Amino acid sequence: MIERDDIDLIDVCVPNHMHHDVVIAAAEAHKMIVCEKPVAMNTAEAEAMVAAAEKAGVANMVSFNYRRVPAISLARQVIDEGRIGRPFHYRATYLQDYTIGADVPQGGMALWRLDSRVAGSGVTGDLLAHSIDTAEWLNGPIARVVTHTETFVKERKHADTGKVEKVDIDDACMFLAIFANGSMGTFESTRYARGRKNYNTFELNGERGAVFFDLEDPHILQFFRYADPDTGKKIEDHLTGWQRIHVTNFEHPYMGAWWVPGCTIGYEHTFINGLADFLAGLEGGPAFQPDLRSGLRTQRVCDAVLQSAREGKWIEIPE
Amino acid sequence: MIERDDIDLIDVCVPNHMHHDVVIAAAEAHKMIVCEKPVAMNTAEAEAMVAAAEKAGVANMVSFNYRRVPAISLARQVIDEGRIGRPFHYRATYLQDYTIGADVPQGGMALWRLDSRVAGSGVTGDLLAHSIDTAEWLNGPIARVVTHTETFVKERKHADTGKVEKVDIDDACMFLAIFANGSMGTFESTRYARGRKNYNTFELNGERGAVFFDLEDPHILQFFRYADPDTGKKIEDHLTGWQRIHVTNFEHPYMGAWWVPGCTIGYEHTFINGLADFLAGLEGGPAFQPDLRSGLRTQRVCDAVLQSAREGKWIEIPE
Amino acid sequence: MIERDDIDLIDVCVPNHMHHDVVIAAAEAHKMIVCEKPVAMNTAEAEAMVAAAEKAGVANMVSFNYRRVPAISLARQVIDEGRIGRPFHYRATYLQDYTIGADVPQGGMALWRLDSRVAGSGVTGDLLAHSIDTAEWLNGPIARVVTHTETFVKERKHADTGKVEKVDIDDACMFLAIFANGSMGTFESTRYARGRKNYNTFELNGERGAVFFDLEDPHILQFFRYADPDTGKKIEDHLTGWQRIHVTNFEHPYMGAWWVPGCTIGYEHTFINGLADFLAGLEGGPAFQPDLRSGLRTQRVCDAVLQSAREGKWIEIPE
Amino acid sequence: MIERDDIDLIDVCVPNHMHHDVVIAAAEAHKMIVCEKPVAMNTAEAEAMVAAAEKAGVANMVSFNYRRVPAISLARQVIDEGRIGRPFHYRATYLQDYTIGADVPQGGMALWRLDSRVAGSGVTGDLLAHSIDTAEWLNGPIARVVTHTETFVKERKHADTGKVEKVDIDDACMFLAIFANGSMGTFESTRYARGRKNYNTFELNGERGAVFFDLEDPHILQFFRYADPDTGKKIEDHLTGWQRIHVTNFEHPYMGAWWVPGCTIGYEHTFINGLADFLAGLEGGPAFQPDLRSGLRTQRVCDAVLQSAREGKWIEIPE
Repeated sequence: MIERDDIDLIDVCVPNHMHHDVVIAAAEAHKMIVCEKPVAMNTAEAEAMVAAAEKAGVANMVSFNYRRVPAISLARQVIDEGRIGRPFHYRATYLQDYTIGADVPQGGMALWRLDSRVAGSGVTGDLLAHSIDTAEWLNGPIARVVTHTETFVKERKHADTGKVEKVDIDDACMFLAIFANGSMGTFESTRYARGRKNYNTFELNGERGAVFFDLEDPHILQFFRYADPDTGKKIEDHLTGWQRIHVTNFEHPYMGAWWVPGCTIGYEHTFINGLADFLAGLEGGPAFQPDLRSGLRTQRVCDAVLQSAREGKWIEIPE
Repeated sequence: MIERDDIDLIDVCVPNHMHHDVVIAAAEAHKMIVCEKPVAMNTAEAEAMVAAAEKAGVANMVSFNYRRVPAISLARQVIDEGRIGRPFHYRATYLQDYTIGADVPQGGMALWRLDSRVAGSGVTGDLLAHSIDTAEWLNGPIARVVTHTETFVKERKHADTGKVEKVDIDDACMFLAIFANGSMGTFESTRYARGRKNYNTFELNGERGAVFFDLEDPHILQFFRYADPDTGKKIEDHLTGWQRIHVTNFEHPYMGAWWVPGCTIGYEHTFINGLADFLAGLEGGPAFQPDLRSGLRTQRVCDAVLQSAREGKWIEIPE
Repeated sequence: MIERDDIDLIDVCVPNHMHHDVVIAAAEAHKMIVCEKPVAMNTAEAEAMVAAAEKAGVANMVSFNYRRVPAISLARQVIDEGRIGRPFHYRATYLQDYTIGADVPQGGMALWRLDSRVAGSGVTGDLLAHSIDTAEWLNGPIARVVTHTETFVKERKHADTGKVEKVDIDDACMFLAIFANGSMGTFESTRYARGRKNYNTFELNGERGAVFFDLEDPHILQFFRYADPDTGKKIEDHLTGWQRIHVTNFEHPYMGAWWVPGCTIGYEHTFINGLADFLAGLEGGPAFQPDLRSGLRTQRVCDAVLQSAREGKWIEIPE
Repeated sequence: MIERDDIDLIDVCVPNHMHHDVVIAAAEAHKMIVCEKPVAMNTAEAEAMVAAAEKAGVANMVSFNYRRVPAISLARQVIDEGRIGRPFHYRATYLQDYTIGADVPQGGMALWRLDSRVAGSGVTGDLLAHSIDTAEWLNGPIARVVTHTETFVKERKHADTGKVEKVDIDDACMFLAIFANGSMGTFESTRYARGRKNYNTFELNGERGAVFFDLEDPHILQFFRYADPDTGKKIEDHLTGWQRIHVTNFEHPYMGAWWVPGCTIGYEHTFINGLADFLAGLEGGPAFQPDLRSGLRTQRVCDAVLQSAREGKWIEIPE
C-alpha cells in the first residue's frame, strides 16, 4: 500500500503492537494517516509516531470515534455554552462483561486484546483510553492519578495454540483523578461487570448544570439545567430535573446530515462523522482533532495510570 | 357513630353499595363527611347524596386522593402556569394484574370489588373513576365517549360460599373521549395487564409543553418544555427533552411539610395531604375539592362510559 | 426503468397516489417490486395492485420496515415461544409533533404527506399503517374498530403556491379495536403530541408475560416474564419485573450480522435487514412478508378505521 | 430522661459530638439505646461506647436505616440466594447538591453537619458512613483504601454568628477500595453534584448476576440475572436484561406489613421497619443489626478513609 501512488491515506486498524511501524512507514511515504486507538504500546512509541507524522507534515487522525457520537458532541457544546459552569465532579465508567467466563481463550485473531504482547495493556488501553480522551476533551487535563488494577482470571488457553498461559493484561482498572481545573474524577473499566455490555458513561457536575451520557443509549444526552449560562440565575425551583435529550434533531451535531428527528444512527456512523470532519479539515476546515499528538497525550495518561497501579501511589502527569 | 355527640366527622370507607345510606344518614345528623370513591353505585344515588349533604350544609370531601400526590398537584400547577398551552391529547391508563388467575375468588370481605352487587361496577368505578377525576381536574369536562368493556374470566368461585357464579363486573374497560375543550383522549383500565401493578398514568400534550405521570413512580413528574408560557417563544432547539422532575423539593406541592429534598413520601401520605387541605378549608382556607358534588360529576361520566359499552355507540355527557 | 432489461426490481418510493400505476406497470413488465407503505390510496387500488403482481408472479415486498427492527422481531420470537400466552391487551401509539405550528405549510415535495390528494390520508396511512401492520403481525387480525379523527389546524398555506387552503387530512386518529382472538386494543396516532418525535410504541399483556417497545429507544425490548412458557409455572415472586433487553447480542434477530454486543444499529439498517430477507427469499428461503397482499390487508383495516370516523360507529372488518 | 424509671430506651439523635457522652450515660443507666449514625466523632469514642453498652448488656441499635429500605433488603436476599455469585465489582455513590452555593452558611442548628467540631467530618461521616455500612453488609469487609477529599468552598459565614470562618469539613470524598473477598470498589460522596439530591446508589457485579439500587427511586431494585444460582447454567441468551423490580409485592422484605402491591412507602418507613426488627429482637427474634459494635466497624473504615486522604497513600484496615 505504501508503494502505491493511487493510495493517499492509510487506515491503521491492525493490532496495537503494529501501529508504531505502520504509522512511521506511512508518514515517511507521505500518506495521510488514520490510526486506531490506543495509538501505541506506550508513550515512547507514540512520541516517535508523532515526530514522524509532524516531520512529514501529513494530515492524521486517531479514531477516538466517540467524540463524534452526536450526544457526546452535544455535551461538549453545552459545556462550551457555559451551561455547566465551574466543574466539581467527573465520573466515568467503561464496563463490559465478555471475559467473565474462565473458558474464554486469549490471543489469536479474535482475542488479541487479551494478549499483552499485542495489545500493550488490557482495559486501560482498550477502554479507558476512550474514557480519558473524552474526559480531557470535556474537562481538560488530568493532573494526578492513583490506580488499582486487577487480573481476575489468572490463566487462559491461547486461542490458537490451546496452551494454558498466564494472563498478563489488566482485566479491570479503577483510578482516582484530580483534574488541572481542580475538579475530582473517578474512572473505572472492566470486562467483568455482569450486565454491562458497552457501558461507556460519563457525568460532569458543575455549578450551573450537569450532563450524563451512556453509550448503551447512544442517542440520549441527559442534561440538568440549574442556572442560566449568561446571568447565573437559577431556573424555576419547581421545574428542575434531568432532561433526556433525544439527540436526533436537525439542530444537533451531525444530525442534519442524517434522518428526520426521532430516527437514530448506528455505531458505524460515528466513524463516518469523524471522516467527514477529517475531509472537511483537508478542504480548509478546522484541523481534525484528535490527531496523533492528541493520541500521544492520552497514551501518557494511560501510562501514568498503569504506573500508579504498579507502584501503589499517586502519580503526577506532566501537562 | 351518628348518635354520638363527640364525633364530628364520618369517614365512609365501607364498600360502595353502602355509601348512599351512610352518607345520607351522616348528613342528616349534621356530621362532616369523608366519602370513599366512587361515591355511589350510580348517578341517581350520588344525586341524592349531594342533595342531602348540601341541604345539611356539612363540609364534605371525596377521597380521590391522587390529586394530592405532589407530582399530580405539580402537573396542575404547570398547566395553570400556562406551560402546556392549548391541549391536543390526553391519554390515561390504570392497569393492574391481580385478577388474571382464574382461581382468584370473587366477593366477600377481601374481594368485594369483584362483586357487582357490592361494587356497582368493576374497573370503571374502581380505577377509571380515579383517571376521570384526574383528567377533568387537569383538562376540563369530557363531552363524549365511546367504550368497550370486557369480562375475561366468566365464572369465579365466591370467596365466602365457594359457589361458582357468573362474573358480572367489567374486568377491563377502554374508551375514547372528546373533551369540551376539543382535545382528544384515550382511557383504559384493566386488572389483566400482566406486568402493571398500579400503573395509573396520564399524559397531556399541548402546544407549549407536555406532562407525563405514572403512579408506580409517584415521586416523578415528567415535563417537556417547549415554549415560554408568557411569550410563547421556543426554548433552545438543542435542549428540548423530557425532564424527570423528582418532586421532593421544598418548593413542590405539599413537600415543604415533609422531608428534605430527595426523600420520598408513601402512599398513605396522599390521604394525609388531603385531610390537611380539608382541615385548612374548615379554618377559612379554600373549600375542599373534590367534594360530593364533584364526585357526582365523576359518577355521571362513569355511568356514560358504561352506557356506551352496553349500547355500542357514542354517548354525550351533559356538562 | 420499466423498459430497461438490466433492471430487475423497481423500488416504488414515490408518493402514495402514484403507487397504483407504478406497481401495476412494474408487474406487467415482470419486474420485482419493493413498495413503500401505505401500499395505496384505498383498498380498491390495493386489490388491483395485488391482482397484477400475483398474475405476473413477481416477487414483491412492502416496506413495513419496522418488522425488521431487531427488538420488534424479538417481540415476535418471544410470542412464538409461548412466553406471552393468552393475550388480553394490546396498546399502540405512534406520536409525532412536527405539525403543531400553524405556519407549517402543506403539500409540495417536502410535505406531501399533509396533502390528502397525494397522501390519501393523514396519520392513518402514514403512521397507523405501521402500527396496524405490527399489531396484526404480533397479535392476529383486528375484527372491529371505532374511531375518532381530528384536524386541529384547519387551513395551511400550500408549500409551493403559498395559497391558503383547507387541510383535508387527519392530523390525529385514535381507535378502539377488538382482535379476532378476543383481546382488546387501543391505537392512537398524531403529529400533535408535543414531546414525542417518533414515539411508535406497543405493549402486549398476556397471561404469562408482556412486551413493550418504543421506537425512540429502538435497541430495547422490555419484557415482563411471569410464567414458564412450557409449564405455566410462575417464576419467583420476589424477582418479577420488567427487563430492559438491550437487543444487540449475537443471538438476537439480525444482530449476528452487525456489530459486537452493546453496539447499536441505525434507522436505515431496518431496510437493509428487510432487503436481506427479501434476497434470501429469492434464493429459496421463506417467501418475504409483508408482501403486497399483506399490505392490502393493512389497507383494508386503515379504510375501516377512517370509515368508522366518518360514520361515528363501530365497523366490522372482514378477515 | 436517664433518671426516669418510665423510660426504657434513649433515642440518641443529637449531633454527632454528643453521641459519646449520651450513649455512655444511657448505658450506665441501663437504658436501651438507639444511636444515630455515624456513631461517634472517631474510632476511639466509638470503642468506648461499645464497651459501655456491652458491659451494661443493653440492647442497642444504630440507625443505618437504609438496610431497611425493602429494595436494599432484597439485594441482600438476592445475594444470599447465590444469584450474584463470585463478586468482581462494587461501586457506590452518595451524591447531593445542597452546599454548592457559596452563600450557604455553616454551623448552628440547621447546618451543624457543616461544622467539623460538631459533625466530626463532612460527607465521609454523614453520607459515606451509609455507603460503607451497606457495602460491608452486602459484600463483606473492606481491606484497603486510597482516598482524596476536597473542600470546594473554603470559607463560609457561621449560621448563628454571621462570622466568616474557614470550612473544615470534607465537601467531597472519593476512594478506591479492595474488599477482603478480592473484589474492587469505588466510593464517592459529595454535596456538590449538581442534579443529584439523594443519589445513594450501589451496584454489585458478580459472576452470576448483578444488582443496582438508587435511593432516589427507593422502591426499585434493578437485577441482572445471568445464571441459575443452583446450577450456574446461563439463562436464555436472548432474554438477558436488567429487571426493574418494583419492590412492593407482599413477598418482598417488609412489604407484607404495608400496602397492596404497586403502592410505595416513604422515607420514614425505613426507620419504622428498623424499630419493628429491634422490637422483634427483644422478643426473642434475631439480635438487631447493625448495633453499636457494627457502627464501630463503620467508624473504623471512615477513619481509615480520612487518614488516607491526609497521608496521600493506601491504608490497610484491620478486620
